[in-house]
Amino acid sequence: MVETNKKKIINDPVHGFISLNHPLIFDLIEHPYFQRLRNIKQLGLTYLVYPGATHSRLQHALGAMFLLDMAISTLRTKGHVITDDEAEAASAAILLHDIGHGPFSHALEYSIVKGVSHEEISRCFMYKLNGEFNGRLNLALQIFDNTYPKHFLHQLISGQLDMDRMDYIKRDTFYTGVSEGTIGADRIIKMLNIVNDQLVVEAKGIYSIENFLIARRLMYWQVYLHKTVVAAEQTLIKLLSRAKTLASKGVELKVSAAFEFFLYNNINSSHFSKDSNCFDETVIDNFARLDDTDIMVAAKTWINHPDIILSKLARMVADRHILSIELSNAPVPQERVNELIIRFKQAHPELAEYVDNFIFTDSVSINAYKPGNESINILYNNHQLVDIAQASDMLNANALSNETKKFFICYPKELR
Amino acid sequence: MVETNKKKIINDPVHGFISLNHPLIFDLIEHPYFQRLRNIKQLGLTYLVYPGATHSRLQHALGAMFLLDMAISTLRTKGHVITDDEAEAASAAILLHDIGHGPFSHALEYSIVKGVSHEEISRCFMYKLNGEFNGRLNLALQIFDNTYPKHFLHQLISGQLDMDRMDYIKRDTFYTGVSEGTIGADRIIKMLNIVNDQLVVEAKGIYSIENFLIARRLMYWQVYLHKTVVAAEQTLIKLLSRAKTLASKGVELKVSAAFEFFLYNNINSSHFSKDSNCFDETVIDNFARLDDTDIMVAAKTWINHPDIILSKLARMVADRHILSIELSNAPVPQERVNELIIRFKQAHPELAEYVDNFIFTDSVSINAYKPGNESINILYNNHQLVDIAQASDMLNANALSNETKKFFICYPKELR
Amino acid sequence: MVETNKKKIINDPVHGFISLNHPLIFDLIEHPYFQRLRNIKQLGLTYLVYPGATHSRLQHALGAMFLLDMAISTLRTKGHVITDDEAEAASAAILLHDIGHGPFSHALEYSIVKGVSHEEISRCFMYKLNGEFNGRLNLALQIFDNTYPKHFLHQLISGQLDMDRMDYIKRDTFYTGVSEGTIGADRIIKMLNIVNDQLVVEAKGIYSIENFLIARRLMYWQVYLHKTVVAAEQTLIKLLSRAKTLASKGVELKVSAAFEFFLYNNINSSHFSKDSNCFDETVIDNFARLDDTDIMVAAKTWINHPDIILSKLARMVADRHILSIELSNAPVPQERVNELIIRFKQAHPELAEYVDNFIFTDSVSINAYKPGNESINILYNNHQLVDIAQASDMLNANALSNETKKFFICYPKELR
Amino acid sequence: MVETNKKKIINDPVHGFISLNHPLIFDLIEHPYFQRLRNIKQLGLTYLVYPGATHSRLQHALGAMFLLDMAISTLRTKGHVITDDEAEAASAAILLHDIGHGPFSHALEYSIVKGVSHEEISRCFMYKLNGEFNGRLNLALQIFDNTYPKHFLHQLISGQLDMDRMDYIKRDTFYTGVSEGTIGADRIIKMLNIVNDQLVVEAKGIYSIENFLIARRLMYWQVYLHKTVVAAEQTLIKLLSRAKTLASKGVELKVSAAFEFFLYNNINSSHFSKDSNCFDETVIDNFARLDDTDIMVAAKTWINHPDIILSKLARMVADRHILSIELSNAPVPQERVNELIIRFKQAHPELAEYVDNFIFTDSVSINAYKPGNESINILYNNHQLVDIAQASDMLNANALSNETKKFFICYPKELR
Repeated sequence: MVETNKKKIINDPVHGFISLNHPLIFDLIEHPYFQRLRNIKQLGLTYLVYPGATHSRLQHALGAMFLLDMAISTLRTKGHVITDDEAEAASAAILLHDIGHGPFSHALEYSIVKGVSHEEISRCFMYKLNGEFNGRLNLALQIFDNTYPKHFLHQLISGQLDMDRMDYIKRDTFYTGVSEGTIGADRIIKMLNIVNDQLVVEAKGIYSIENFLIARRLMYWQVYLHKTVVAAEQTLIKLLSRAKTLASKGVELKVSAAFEFFLYNNINSSHFSKDSNCFDETVIDNFARLDDTDIMVAAKTWINHPDIILSKLARMVADRHILSIELSNAPVPQERVNELIIRFKQAHPELAEYVDNFIFTDSVSINAYKPGNESINILYNNHQLVDIAQASDMLNANALSNETKKFFICYPKELR
Repeated sequence: MVETNKKKIINDPVHGFISLNHPLIFDLIEHPYFQRLRNIKQLGLTYLVYPGATHSRLQHALGAMFLLDMAISTLRTKGHVITDDEAEAASAAILLHDIGHGPFSHALEYSIVKGVSHEEISRCFMYKLNGEFNGRLNLALQIFDNTYPKHFLHQLISGQLDMDRMDYIKRDTFYTGVSEGTIGADRIIKMLNIVNDQLVVEAKGIYSIENFLIARRLMYWQVYLHKTVVAAEQTLIKLLSRAKTLASKGVELKVSAAFEFFLYNNINSSHFSKDSNCFDETVIDNFARLDDTDIMVAAKTWINHPDIILSKLARMVADRHILSIELSNAPVPQERVNELIIRFKQAHPELAEYVDNFIFTDSVSINAYKPGNESINILYNNHQLVDIAQASDMLNANALSNETKKFFICYPKELR
Repeated sequence: MVETNKKKIINDPVHGFISLNHPLIFDLIEHPYFQRLRNIKQLGLTYLVYPGATHSRLQHALGAMFLLDMAISTLRTKGHVITDDEAEAASAAILLHDIGHGPFSHALEYSIVKGVSHEEISRCFMYKLNGEFNGRLNLALQIFDNTYPKHFLHQLISGQLDMDRMDYIKRDTFYTGVSEGTIGADRIIKMLNIVNDQLVVEAKGIYSIENFLIARRLMYWQVYLHKTVVAAEQTLIKLLSRAKTLASKGVELKVSAAFEFFLYNNINSSHFSKDSNCFDETVIDNFARLDDTDIMVAAKTWINHPDIILSKLARMVADRHILSIELSNAPVPQERVNELIIRFKQAHPELAEYVDNFIFTDSVSINAYKPGNESINILYNNHQLVDIAQASDMLNANALSNETKKFFICYPKELR
Repeated sequence: MVETNKKKIINDPVHGFISLNHPLIFDLIEHPYFQRLRNIKQLGLTYLVYPGATHSRLQHALGAMFLLDMAISTLRTKGHVITDDEAEAASAAILLHDIGHGPFSHALEYSIVKGVSHEEISRCFMYKLNGEFNGRLNLALQIFDNTYPKHFLHQLISGQLDMDRMDYIKRDTFYTGVSEGTIGADRIIKMLNIVNDQLVVEAKGIYSIENFLIARRLMYWQVYLHKTVVAAEQTLIKLLSRAKTLASKGVELKVSAAFEFFLYNNINSSHFSKDSNCFDETVIDNFARLDDTDIMVAAKTWINHPDIILSKLARMVADRHILSIELSNAPVPQERVNELIIRFKQAHPELAEYVDNFIFTDSVSINAYKPGNESINILYNNHQLVDIAQASDMLNANALSNETKKFFICYPKELR
């Protein structure tokens, strides 16, 4: 009876219409675990700098699935066998690949659920769902875990050329309005092929790959690691860390139940272990209720908290009066740090011993591309495979694979 | 030194770069009152149907200001005098015209702050800000209140052709992906002129106006009054009403401080009265801390509330398993209502007396266009002015001005 | 070996990548008859007003085929049987549906090949091609001629909702930059269905259809019948008519061989007759060499022709100093005509007897929609079919089906 | 009265509305010299590969002027003085900078008007126009010739960051549908500044510049030097060279008057010399009548010419059955050339001595960027200027400035 409803079409401003092609997909999307992603922004606090970037992880997951469908069609056209079951499983796997992201994911991993990657949590969610769905996710899990013999299916989901990246760069470009980050996702997908169970790009696509790598890099510096975005995230990390410290001392912090669970318990990797098949239902159930709104409400609430460090940081986050930041190619000179610390202590003698919460240095870095077993291979007409780092006459291997690092110092705006 | 920072450029995916042209504008945008709009979705729960529609009221306010700048430039080019002070004031007025929107505005007005329009609250915020800014908003307030002699400035902010509408249709179209709703905002603005202190459209723009009216109508039915959007909003209204009822009985409802204030106090129009100059700081301060996140966290929290009506409705909102809806041109037959009520009572005998919360009828309606003193006038080359309802050979006056009404019934999904 | 090349992908700025899905399609596209369309602008002289509108009939034919593929996929998904042969034939038919267009088609039909419609010529080309291709176009011809039992296939190619229209409105919108003409072609196609061998639109698509009809109307007035476009076309008609008159008197007119053929012979409908199966190879061969470039070169050449009427009109076309035009809702008053004639004769006594070539009146008109056997039917959930003119509460039947007519007078610019 | 008409708005699909801000600009656009550009495709024969690329040089000239206006506004906002006269002159200069382009410009320079660059011809046109306009182009000519003291104005028109490039990359991207070539023209323009009379880019724009250089490169390989585009151009060069050879022998070639002039006379650089102030009116007048249509009509006419080399090449161009091409990183091995020559002679013994017309090798190359006196300088906050080749950590100096060269061989399709 409801089956007919399971053929659904979703409007997406980036890709147009997204069709749900498998009944399993429809059921997964309806599940509260997946719906939670509606309230988790794909780019966390980036919307403080690029106001348009309010798009959710749910949209991205749908978009990645759409591109995967396109890739599978292309590969089938080129004579590669992909069964309907495999297509469904790959769709499910990419739909769920980010389901373990918490709110402001990066900030959370540095404060509340220390050292737990979102991949671990995603796998945990998938195991739980597989139980609920009576094993219908078995194949999807194999692809996700790269234990399925057709490894190219895993590469479509996680690799240098995965549909995850294709969608997020295109989508982030669209929502931030940084139009120059535009990549030729359609063209790259049309140029995909498989050689020895490896995803490769046909030679005609080489310039699209160059452009893709450069566009990704541009998005890193212009958006993902934009100095104000970094400053916002650092401010949030400090806020959450302070809250965690207070919680560990038993101080009361009015927050939602789900958030309270993670503040007052020490949750780590072991709670999401694969081997355990995620036995700890409390952890996953609480995580499944945690999204951006819990954090933002907490920040607003804490403005009036008696702890002055917490309240000061909370106000910064809630009112978007975040820490100032200076970014540079070299480490920040110690004199600069010291000078700011002295000025801070003069201005806020009562906070002297807590200066670390407000003035600190660190670094951010990116790799445009890592050659090696994860490399992007170009397929020439003579059937030769060449690593993009060699194949490109523009992007020489060193420039591509070198890590680019920038150093920063954060400090309160009033010290500017 | 900081003044230079007040020349800022903001990236907007809809309009490109938005320049902040006046120092006052920069200061207003930095204010927490305005920043609050970042966490209020322009289209409320519409993102449950159109996942892309996560854009905020902040973006819309900036976009409307951008179009206003464009309109002012055009009008100046045609020889109309608009001083820099007037331009700044009009910019401020349109920037702040929606600042009084609460979270899920429509739902709120039907439940928590009954009968208070967002215009009243916007005015209240503007008065408060005018105090803080030492009267720099005097002129903006006159334009907003339409007491300023150049009435066309008010029309640019609020009227059949205001920049508010131009931006929201363009923006909602962009974010929902309903591309056919596209309007020629640029063209309409280029065709604006002033006759007798009235905003008019030059004859060459008549087809753009027709298209604008039809596009607006399409957006109403396809998006704003989409049946699932209406159902979601109705579910939220029921949830908030139930919470208000419980609060009035003194039942404890764990919510954020700001939300608590509005649940446990009876706030009405008098608290935002213009005459009072918004003397009641507590009201406005609490309102200024209220956004979408408070409501969403409350819904998640209430899933575990002992009141079964509240918890059932809360789960619907939190998990996007909202009420079902049937929409029709005629009122819903009483038999249909009765049949559903009987089935509901059989299925949920414990909720029998609360059936009104789950099964109810109502109607939605739109006017494409209201002729009269708010009419859109077309300026012909012979200087004649003709109402669009007459000027258009397509959109005859009746069709345009008739109210279109649809009736609906809501009921729990399991009764489908 | 070459077969692999017949899987081709073409870049299209409007639709993205267009895949050629059938070998027959590849061969048709490679044929010089089809390639000729590269040098025929879809919108004729419109590029004199909208400089971006330089797109060719070849692009449009490819685009219409792309949308047809999409429509066929959608209909198959809904359970309607369309065989691969039918799909190929329908693709071929829409690809070739406009192959009989001459350069500046409308102008030509009024001057050089009087009274021969481009449909007749298209059919003629298809018969010729069917011969060359050994009957591979038999089925395509049946669909084109609507003699094939599945009539909905013909409707996809020629009807109120055909893919021809869907593509040309979308494409003309894109190239002229009149963005407000945007239609939801994708959405309309997704809403197509078949009832009793008739193409219908599901009820959810009603607003998209309203928008489509209004957008088409807007494009008519803003682009296709833009007053300067009409004036340009009228100037060209006068030029070609004068050339034809001179040719009939044996005056030498230096033109290309193909154009010469049509100037110096009287070609009419009988030469393209269906019954004859287009036996006259000379006619079709010459037509197959005629495109925009022949006309434009002729105009440039004639600037120096001794006939002063021809040379004056030629200069107007070549230098884009076309006739002036006045457009109005009522017929042009005879006094206005007389006044202009008198002034013309005073200014150009030597052209007095040829005044008809420079000053003349006529009218243009459009029907937004013709109800009747070609109507657009809306399919309701209760399986009822309703004509859009009834189904729409906005576009009332009269407004829709009434012919809208505008009258004009043309005269040389110097009389303004 | 007519002055009001000189405030005109032109619809452009790339930039939206283009306003003509100076009466001089209006008059220049109306001139037949400028109107000629409507019939010259910006990308010549590229439309044989990318069917959408039918845009004209006229559109590009208008677009470049639009971006120049934007750049001038930005620079004025940053405190740089640019008078209205300078702005008008710069607008005129960029509008006319390409007015000397002939049809299929590159092919022409290699065959008919050997060794005359389009810049020389553009200057010639400007001198002529300056005469007609009574010196109103004096200042524009100084800027064009870089003799005007404010050299940054010249750089805006011709340099590594000129508005010519900004427009053509954006426009070619749009019309070919190669969306990944998208550049952030708006952002780059917003980041422009002037230091020591030199156009520089503020440090925040560095990634946009990287992206611009990579996008340009991508457009070179994917579009401008696409192998089929190169093959088409080479085929046309061979056709025109053959025609020129025949003409020099007195053979009759039916072509338009303007084309005849250039075929039967030896026109070279001296005819467009700056010192002569373009005294030879016949040359410039004939050039002013030459556009794409003359060449295409000639090709169609020559299909029936008795010279079999000419007719064979003509058919290739007219029917788009152009020469095949092989592109490689190394010079084509002599054996490959010999083998093809032998096969050709066997297949076409009658053409044995003319094999050079059908089989030949050559190379194409590009420089992504040339550092030196034309370099792109990045302006850091400490007022330091750094060449982009140094400033970028990605695009290392060598990769950027090295010439990239590809070798090719052309031969008739039937030898594949």
